[in-house]
Amino acid sequence: MKQRMGIVVAALLLASAVALAANTPGVKPRTMADVIAASKPSDWRTVDPQNTLYLELPTGRVVIELNPTFAPNNVTNIRTLVREHYFDGLAIVRAQDNFVVQWQDPDHSRSLGTAEKTLGAEFSRSSNDLPFTVLPDPDTYAPEVGFVNGFPAAREPRTHLAWLVHCYSMVGVGRDDDVDSGNGSELYVVIGHAPRQLDRNVTLVGRVVYGIELLSTMKRGTGERGFYDKASERTPIQSIRLASEVPEAQRTSVEVLRTDTPTFTELVEVRRNRREEWYKVPAGRIDICNVPLVSRKKS
Amino acid sequence: MKQRMGIVVAALLLASAVALAANTPGVKPRTMADVIAASKPSDWRTVDPQNTLYLELPTGRVVIELNPTFAPNNVTNIRTLVREHYFDGLAIVRAQDNFVVQWQDPDHSRSLGTAEKTLGAEFSRSSNDLPFTVLPDPDTYAPEVGFVNGFPAAREPRTHLAWLVHCYSMVGVGRDDDVDSGNGSELYVVIGHAPRQLDRNVTLVGRVVYGIELLSTMKRGTGERGFYDKASERTPIQSIRLASEVPEAQRTSVEVLRTDTPTFTELVEVRRNRREEWYKVPAGRIDICNVPLVSRKKS
Repeated sequence: MKQRMGIVVAALLLASAVALAANTPGVKPRTMADVIAASKPSDWRTVDPQNTLYLELPTGRVVIELNPTFAPNNVTNIRTLVREHYFDGLAIVRAQDNFVVQWQDPDHSRSLGTAEKTLGAEFSRSSNDLPFTVLPDPDTYAPEVGFVNGFPAAREPRTHLAWLVHCYSMVGVGRDDDVDSGNGSELYVVIGHAPRQLDRNVTLVGRVVYGIELLSTMKRGTGERGFYDKASERTPIQSIRLASEVPEAQRTSVEVLRTDTPTFTELVEVRRNRREEWYKVPAGRIDICNVPLVSRKKS
Repeated sequence: MKQRMGIVVAALLLASAVALAANTPGVKPRTMADVIAASKPSDWRTVDPQNTLYLELPTGRVVIELNPTFAPNNVTNIRTLVREHYFDGLAIVRAQDNFVVQWQDPDHSRSLGTAEKTLGAEFSRSSNDLPFTVLPDPDTYAPEVGFVNGFPAAREPRTHLAWLVHCYSMVGVGRDDDVDSGNGSELYVVIGHAPRQLDRNVTLVGRVVYGIELLSTMKRGTGERGFYDKASERTPIQSIRLASEVPEAQRTSVEVLRTDTPTFTELVEVRRNRREEWYKVPAGRIDICNVPLVSRKKS
């Protein structure tokens, strides 16, 4: 506990030093690039291959980190679908501007194999004993927001519940009206302004950590809700694989900046108050979905 | 005044009716589509051709509504640049994922003609006598947010200042470090999660009201800050024209839903509390940049 307090104090001192630097003529304030350049190897976490999906498109590979902490049953079902090659040859069926890109079986006919057909919703979970890096700024939608192991999340002290939130690049499970009607065979990725009204209405299962631009630049569908009118407009999915089942030489190893470190605290601070010469009015606050969750390909 | 109060009361009654409907079994709650279908011609405003830009790309036309209420001098300068065909043959030089698409003279060599080289910044203006439809929900960045004539805006009661905010599709004026260094010859459009840290740091001059998907789907630049590394990756700009200088038969007439009407009040309410069967937890609140600012091509 004492050690932890020490880290917090160090982080606060660091933050104060940044603020001071900004007010000292001739001293260049630190930027996000500076913070990342000064980061230590221990500030980073390599994404577990068991929690890594490769979505293979004709244009390249999209890497998704799954989150079994918040959606254990849905993640297990998605792993089953992926192991049995359920997604291979299916397609991106929907791209709605400023909202989501979605994939599924366009014909709704493929067998789910040994995967569950329906699953209990995992919209939220207990926040007890869940390490949570709190963001100090007010949020429109939730009483408290912050980060859990690299994912954007919210927390409600009254109910002791926590849930993942719909920031750009988050991956969710499509469902019908029934809350338990999703099973992971229809997945979508947020490619626009955070649709936070979906929080606690959908099971979020992960986040794109590499290659999101392959999804965000897709031609938008002109049908209702961005579905493609013609089959020929859909982007085919070559395959989805778990990284752990791909030979090591063919893996894309991704590391993400940890969100429970003094380095991350400083990163948040330099983004809450942008002190670069260009900025004239530092916001002093930041929206949960504007905090960069940094990931990079391991060389 | 009495009439105005009547409208407010009617709007509140309407909102209550919606809330009631949601709790009444068998009564289908109203959706945004219902609200728009029931709208009257007077709920809409045709965009003034004097305030309309056509950005002509090889893929089609993007329509921008300029906002002289907030940025009179910058809008005047942009009109001058456009009238003198400054932008014709220039290019989209930057596409940064989840941030902005930007155009300018890639060679920084073209004459600005009779346009001003530098202009005073128009980051904010007096809020006095500015009709402002307040959004009741808390905002991370500003003490008060809402709408001014179809544009998302913020207001600070203490200073009596108002400013446009950086939601998806907003158009801003690029500048160097000096606040007065912008002139409208470099423009960018927001294509990602609202970068609200730019509020009051940039002069916002308008909003894309039609064709944003031509910008949001552009291949992202791989250079620093999303600039294209190679000239061949840039999308050429065929021309930018003021609608008022285009023959009527070639115009794209766009109308936008007014934001100072009971219809808009109801639209905001049905989005703050989504009561469709699919939604299990209505948010009860909405982020300024999640409120749909509806526009449509006039037939």
